[in-house]
Amino acid sequence: MTDQFSKKAEAWSARFSEPVSDLVKRYTASVFFDKRMAKADIQGSLAHADMLAAQGIIAASDLAAIQKGMAQISGEIDAGQFEWQLDLEDVHLNIEKRLTELVGDAGKRLHTGRSRNDQVATDIRLYVRAAIDDITGLLQQLRGALVDLAEKNADVILPGFTHMQVAQPITFGHHMLAYVEMFGRDVERMQDCRKRVNRLPLGAAALAGTTFPIDRLRVAQSLGFDDVCHNSLDAVSDRDFAIEFTAAASLLMMHVSRMSEELIIWMSPRVGFIDIADRFCTGSSIMPQKKNPDVPELARGKTGRVYGHLMGLLTLMKGQPLAYNKDNQEDKEPLFDTVDTVVDTLRIFADMAGGITVKPEAMRSAALQGYATATDLADYLVKKGLPFRDAHEAVAHAVRACDDLKIDLSEMSLEQLRAFSPLVGDDVFAVLTLEGSVAARDHVGGTAPNQVRAAIARVRQQLAG
Amino acid sequence: MTDQFSKKAEAWSARFSEPVSDLVKRYTASVFFDKRMAKADIQGSLAHADMLAAQGIIAASDLAAIQKGMAQISGEIDAGQFEWQLDLEDVHLNIEKRLTELVGDAGKRLHTGRSRNDQVATDIRLYVRAAIDDITGLLQQLRGALVDLAEKNADVILPGFTHMQVAQPITFGHHMLAYVEMFGRDVERMQDCRKRVNRLPLGAAALAGTTFPIDRLRVAQSLGFDDVCHNSLDAVSDRDFAIEFTAAASLLMMHVSRMSEELIIWMSPRVGFIDIADRFCTGSSIMPQKKNPDVPELARGKTGRVYGHLMGLLTLMKGQPLAYNKDNQEDKEPLFDTVDTVVDTLRIFADMAGGITVKPEAMRSAALQGYATATDLADYLVKKGLPFRDAHEAVAHAVRACDDLKIDLSEMSLEQLRAFSPLVGDDVFAVLTLEGSVAARDHVGGTAPNQVRAAIARVRQQLAG
Amino acid sequence: MTDQFSKKAEAWSARFSEPVSDLVKRYTASVFFDKRMAKADIQGSLAHADMLAAQGIIAASDLAAIQKGMAQISGEIDAGQFEWQLDLEDVHLNIEKRLTELVGDAGKRLHTGRSRNDQVATDIRLYVRAAIDDITGLLQQLRGALVDLAEKNADVILPGFTHMQVAQPITFGHHMLAYVEMFGRDVERMQDCRKRVNRLPLGAAALAGTTFPIDRLRVAQSLGFDDVCHNSLDAVSDRDFAIEFTAAASLLMMHVSRMSEELIIWMSPRVGFIDIADRFCTGSSIMPQKKNPDVPELARGKTGRVYGHLMGLLTLMKGQPLAYNKDNQEDKEPLFDTVDTVVDTLRIFADMAGGITVKPEAMRSAALQGYATATDLADYLVKKGLPFRDAHEAVAHAVRACDDLKIDLSEMSLEQLRAFSPLVGDDVFAVLTLEGSVAARDHVGGTAPNQVRAAIARVRQQLAG
Amino acid sequence: MTDQFSKKAEAWSARFSEPVSDLVKRYTASVFFDKRMAKADIQGSLAHADMLAAQGIIAASDLAAIQKGMAQISGEIDAGQFEWQLDLEDVHLNIEKRLTELVGDAGKRLHTGRSRNDQVATDIRLYVRAAIDDITGLLQQLRGALVDLAEKNADVILPGFTHMQVAQPITFGHHMLAYVEMFGRDVERMQDCRKRVNRLPLGAAALAGTTFPIDRLRVAQSLGFDDVCHNSLDAVSDRDFAIEFTAAASLLMMHVSRMSEELIIWMSPRVGFIDIADRFCTGSSIMPQKKNPDVPELARGKTGRVYGHLMGLLTLMKGQPLAYNKDNQEDKEPLFDTVDTVVDTLRIFADMAGGITVKPEAMRSAALQGYATATDLADYLVKKGLPFRDAHEAVAHAVRACDDLKIDLSEMSLEQLRAFSPLVGDDVFAVLTLEGSVAARDHVGGTAPNQVRAAIARVRQQLAG
Repeated sequence: MTDQFSKKAEAWSARFSEPVSDLVKRYTASVFFDKRMAKADIQGSLAHADMLAAQGIIAASDLAAIQKGMAQISGEIDAGQFEWQLDLEDVHLNIEKRLTELVGDAGKRLHTGRSRNDQVATDIRLYVRAAIDDITGLLQQLRGALVDLAEKNADVILPGFTHMQVAQPITFGHHMLAYVEMFGRDVERMQDCRKRVNRLPLGAAALAGTTFPIDRLRVAQSLGFDDVCHNSLDAVSDRDFAIEFTAAASLLMMHVSRMSEELIIWMSPRVGFIDIADRFCTGSSIMPQKKNPDVPELARGKTGRVYGHLMGLLTLMKGQPLAYNKDNQEDKEPLFDTVDTVVDTLRIFADMAGGITVKPEAMRSAALQGYATATDLADYLVKKGLPFRDAHEAVAHAVRACDDLKIDLSEMSLEQLRAFSPLVGDDVFAVLTLEGSVAARDHVGGTAPNQVRAAIARVRQQLAG
Repeated sequence: MTDQFSKKAEAWSARFSEPVSDLVKRYTASVFFDKRMAKADIQGSLAHADMLAAQGIIAASDLAAIQKGMAQISGEIDAGQFEWQLDLEDVHLNIEKRLTELVGDAGKRLHTGRSRNDQVATDIRLYVRAAIDDITGLLQQLRGALVDLAEKNADVILPGFTHMQVAQPITFGHHMLAYVEMFGRDVERMQDCRKRVNRLPLGAAALAGTTFPIDRLRVAQSLGFDDVCHNSLDAVSDRDFAIEFTAAASLLMMHVSRMSEELIIWMSPRVGFIDIADRFCTGSSIMPQKKNPDVPELARGKTGRVYGHLMGLLTLMKGQPLAYNKDNQEDKEPLFDTVDTVVDTLRIFADMAGGITVKPEAMRSAALQGYATATDLADYLVKKGLPFRDAHEAVAHAVRACDDLKIDLSEMSLEQLRAFSPLVGDDVFAVLTLEGSVAARDHVGGTAPNQVRAAIARVRQQLAG
Repeated sequence: MTDQFSKKAEAWSARFSEPVSDLVKRYTASVFFDKRMAKADIQGSLAHADMLAAQGIIAASDLAAIQKGMAQISGEIDAGQFEWQLDLEDVHLNIEKRLTELVGDAGKRLHTGRSRNDQVATDIRLYVRAAIDDITGLLQQLRGALVDLAEKNADVILPGFTHMQVAQPITFGHHMLAYVEMFGRDVERMQDCRKRVNRLPLGAAALAGTTFPIDRLRVAQSLGFDDVCHNSLDAVSDRDFAIEFTAAASLLMMHVSRMSEELIIWMSPRVGFIDIADRFCTGSSIMPQKKNPDVPELARGKTGRVYGHLMGLLTLMKGQPLAYNKDNQEDKEPLFDTVDTVVDTLRIFADMAGGITVKPEAMRSAALQGYATATDLADYLVKKGLPFRDAHEAVAHAVRACDDLKIDLSEMSLEQLRAFSPLVGDDVFAVLTLEGSVAARDHVGGTAPNQVRAAIARVRQQLAG
Repeated sequence: MTDQFSKKAEAWSARFSEPVSDLVKRYTASVFFDKRMAKADIQGSLAHADMLAAQGIIAASDLAAIQKGMAQISGEIDAGQFEWQLDLEDVHLNIEKRLTELVGDAGKRLHTGRSRNDQVATDIRLYVRAAIDDITGLLQQLRGALVDLAEKNADVILPGFTHMQVAQPITFGHHMLAYVEMFGRDVERMQDCRKRVNRLPLGAAALAGTTFPIDRLRVAQSLGFDDVCHNSLDAVSDRDFAIEFTAAASLLMMHVSRMSEELIIWMSPRVGFIDIADRFCTGSSIMPQKKNPDVPELARGKTGRVYGHLMGLLTLMKGQPLAYNKDNQEDKEPLFDTVDTVVDTLRIFADMAGGITVKPEAMRSAALQGYATATDLADYLVKKGLPFRDAHEAVAHAVRACDDLKIDLSEMSLEQLRAFSPLVGDDVFAVLTLEGSVAARDHVGGTAPNQVRAAIARVRQQLAG
């Protein structure tokens, strides 16, 4: 008797009167990208087979044969000797067919009580779960590297910008910790997403469950899932987790793009706040003097790629009727590419953090431009009793006068300053220094160096935990 | 002495030599959309003033004046008598200016130790937090309505589709529960997002914190925030929460779009599985016979709107250097429109669920087309000892024969069936009935009516909890 | 006898047994945004009525009554006295109902041979066509303003950047002309899109055409359309033109975002290449010294809004079966907002171009940093006979030496330079000057001032044409 | 003397003190995807070298050597023997380095007067131009196949749907022609885009032009470009054409998604309007009876992929300062994948059109449900003198009565019909037939079979032209 796949090149199954056309085969096959899930597929099949045997649905000898066959297949894949065949469409049929070649009828029994619909859903979840764990580790590594950089530069003062205009003096340590916070939220989001990834669809079969007395909780447990998907129709058609993961990855890449933008601007010669080590830069084919910050530029560009994948996946699922449709096969490539992009980017950023040289003099000289301590002067007047809005106006007059005189606020004489408010005393000059300004912002979240050090300690504890 | 805003129409502040052009005023003003946050703005200001007084930064009499003034302003807004002025740019300056008119210097002291940057960030978070709570309630209401519909139709059999082809019989109750699961994940995501919304940016001031001895935890507590934002630069520039919320809303709308697609198809006359009450439908300006399922169609269309807002917000934040930039003002309209769209859509869907009439005969007759029990026959053969892949092939031959004969599998005689496998006995006909098929999928997540009832009980418990 | 809309509040038509629920009315009504198309709607109706009369489908007296009624309605709208009613759903039914109030049966005859499906498609096309014409005019205005700015600064030298690193000296005029080219392509795309907008859907009726002997070409001609839509199903469901327009607008806004990014960086104090007049800037609520380039920042942010609308419209149309579905109503708000955003942004940018002050000294001093003439030195060596790759390497050595010595290439002595290549002669210093470098790039598209002037003349001719 | 690339593995050039790290090499290299442009790169280099020789910038012997070397390289690539090296980053350096190995100094002279910035821009434009030409051909092929299908079924009547409800009878030929129109607009858009693709950036060099006396028009002519890019800064940073192409491709895929949606619904057993040949379908791993329309499902899914690429490219270019930034390298993969997706999809759809079997009886029986001729009855009454709105209401009453009686309008007796309007005469029954209804829509764009045939003739002429 023939089995379903013995003449697959001739027709899909006995129900079909002609083979799939070659064009269609190439258009619909997924094996050349979904083979990346081979190990997850084998892992899932072994857990399924173990449960089938435990429930008496297949014989213990079938299980043993399947385990032996899968071990061999796993070895063949590792050795690069497994022959992936387009005719067998996808990773699932390729492995199952090979298993049957190796172990005969036991192989043909493996698919009892399941369908490719719940099988592939299980495989992707295993894949995404592992990706989330990798990415979480890399995020913490990057946070650690940024904390080190922050600590080394906890007292280095640079101008804080809003609207790219000098706002108030801040410390470089404080600035780095802003990114540590962002990447910390990325960790949280990845973990929240992981909860929804880590539910087992297997057992949903094609869409309605199966007539065999399966034990889904056993399978969930053996694969490390927290729970099972509670509705079979939903289980085979749910791709929320892929979208949620890609949305979290998009936010992560947005953070990378912001940091990249700053690194690029800071390394631009007019700003000159930092240098990035040569090993992270490349030159020009025509201009011999060029040294370009390729890594942050490319990372900034790769943001678009991940945003695009998110939009692609959302479009994919829009308006799809239940349950499984072939459209869903399109979930994999954007997902895989998102994982690759995020993993590579985080790895290289964690590495590059150690290659950043801070230039404190350039930062300091920039902070002395632009009346960075004007707010301090206003606050000073408030503390002397002036309502804030009047203080703001008084200082605005003073700034305009400085602008005309081309001097900084701290370069005005006491007389000059008193022209704008009689409340000014000679204690004013202390608040107009960069150090005084920075040290005064001394509360949780503020830029004062001791707050920066406290924040570093807090993150270090998180990272250790 | 003039304060900063007394001559705002003439110049932004004393630092400026000419007024903002009218075109620019209209281009940059936000008051006509951000006034929606007025109540949040007042709530935030009161908590800030209370803390300033508690810390001795302003006098108790100032606090009292501010409280009194804000009460009046709140009343004016409720009564629609508050005069919003374009010249005052945004909700914040409009309210502060009015406060100063009402209470004088106390009003000019309110802005001590804060900036619009942390103020607006606080307002939006209060707004989004309230929106999440509303949406969560509406999601649970919709889930409740769908559970009711599922319970009423727990035994009604319709064909389950994959690829829009008849796959296996399922129950209508089971189908509805798939959406209950989806909307349940939306609740989870909204709650996870809420954790990150519910952190207080106030105290970050412009970007670096403030020189006043503020108590951020007190403010957090009085506004019901779980924590403070731990880095001032991040606090004023972070819009992650808006994006995460819109991403969660996009997934929610994707679920709505899928359900809409099914309702529309089901109400199409060739399918005829359901009817939707007249009050949710409209007619045609030209075709007198038309009754159109406008609500699900429009909801499906509105999915694009929310996806678009997500993409807009992601684009907005891409590559923005720290800290606050004016770009960020563009976060509000997409956010507000997302909230409106989701709230209206959930409300109308919860209502519409009660207006759906199920047509069991049409469903049953459809389930009898398309060999829905072919898998049951294959499973039957497996239970008789045939490996699954051989059973699949045998049934494929049988289906092809039925196709030629234009009969269903259950209409074949025992002889006819035995031609495809000698394992077939006369117990086969029980497995070929719709009821037999459905009842046999009797495990967690399966379509068997008693599993559907168990699932309903489980969700009811969640909803009660 | 009752007509269809006489009791619309009670039921959609006689076919319906209950009125549309209030919630549904608000959810599905479009009148509060589509009334913006009122003039287009009237214009289309008049052309339709004119044709109906010409074809003998309605009487000449009906036409006269319709014309008279529409004139009055038009006046009421202009005077803000027209009462828009939610119960009448949209702009079309509101106007038709009012017409019937005013002129009786003639009003009830207007809808002969058409449907709202082709009517709304006609209205939107009229609206988009007008928007394209406005936008084209504004683009040319902006290009003109940038050409003026380019001309004034045709000889001003600044560093050209690649990777935000100094690359080669360029002129400010040349830089401005890059944007003139971009906005020129936007004009082209708008014009190409206009061809596809300017086809008449009217006559498609609901979806299949009409049984009346209509003359579509006459209507097309009287409305200024180039052609009719050649398939009725396509005519009522086609929203390509809205998407194509929004895609063109997205590219336009992308150009705006790039220019904005540069203006913001150039106005940042460390760079200081330009100043933007106070009337285009605003200040800070807390920092008295701030002057922020709000307009380019906000414009950069608004890019996201338009990208989002594009994605929303693409999502809207994805997978929609023919012909008209209610989803399509969602095309209007993104379209309207795109038009508003683009129109306002172009207008303000054209205005702001005149408010940009160029600071030639800062630009020059920046061009002297970063070895901007290194390529000139390499080219010099090539002209002396060295292959380009060897010349590139020789200059790279020279740059590295300069870096160690902290001098520019032009500050090296002849001896020092000859250490890197014996081909260097004392004519080398001419090529190392900024003026020499710029003037040498003297071919179509190059940065030499005379090429810039030629390019300006070329654009001026386009603008005049 | 060493040239720039002789020790590239050790350092980027003499200006660099350490080699690029391995991680960075892999992150930034593009050779493994941009080698797809190898032939375009060689073509561009040959045109450039030819011009250099013609202008006397390199010797005739250099040109001859370059031509010989390139011929060999081209052969090596065709034979799969070219060794692509990661260390050489991209397709450009790989080919140039090999050329220098083969022909020595002439190879080192090739890069005179150009940069990779203008080189890669030229290569991509050559690539996109070829893709547009391929896609245009495939679009016309698909249109031809659909016209054939339309012609075969010009008289086959099916219900036209709006809102997925039966609207009016149409012909299948007419329905197919709606897609012929859509794909016709795609052709137009591709051609409009081609104009902007077909401009030569070469000569812009790094960003400012070159000091060599190049002849850009000669290069343009020899590469078949219509014009040169008129501003060097714009030339190297412009990626509009890639975005415009991807936007046109997104619209194209949207059309494919709509057609796919209809094919899938039509092949669903409850509708049963068509069958798709087995060679375009696949089966199920578990359900032996399944035959799934994989091709349209997958095509519908692939829409998301192309939308995503569009969004990715738009994000990429948002806010990029001039001129070239490394971000731009990210333009290629989305572009390549868009081309592949569109080409494969069009090819398979053109093929599949011949595998569609129309089922006229199912279509006819569906058209007889749902009062498809109600509008015809209203039009009939209008022709008898009733204003349209009154006619609409009269027919709505009749439809509601039919609904209660469960009969069609055409099954009512003359008496019954006259109860709704005394204007009904016994000529009414002719207008209530499907054939009568269809034939009556006899104007340009209408569904009458002779209009369909006229439209087919019109398209055939376009395709021949």
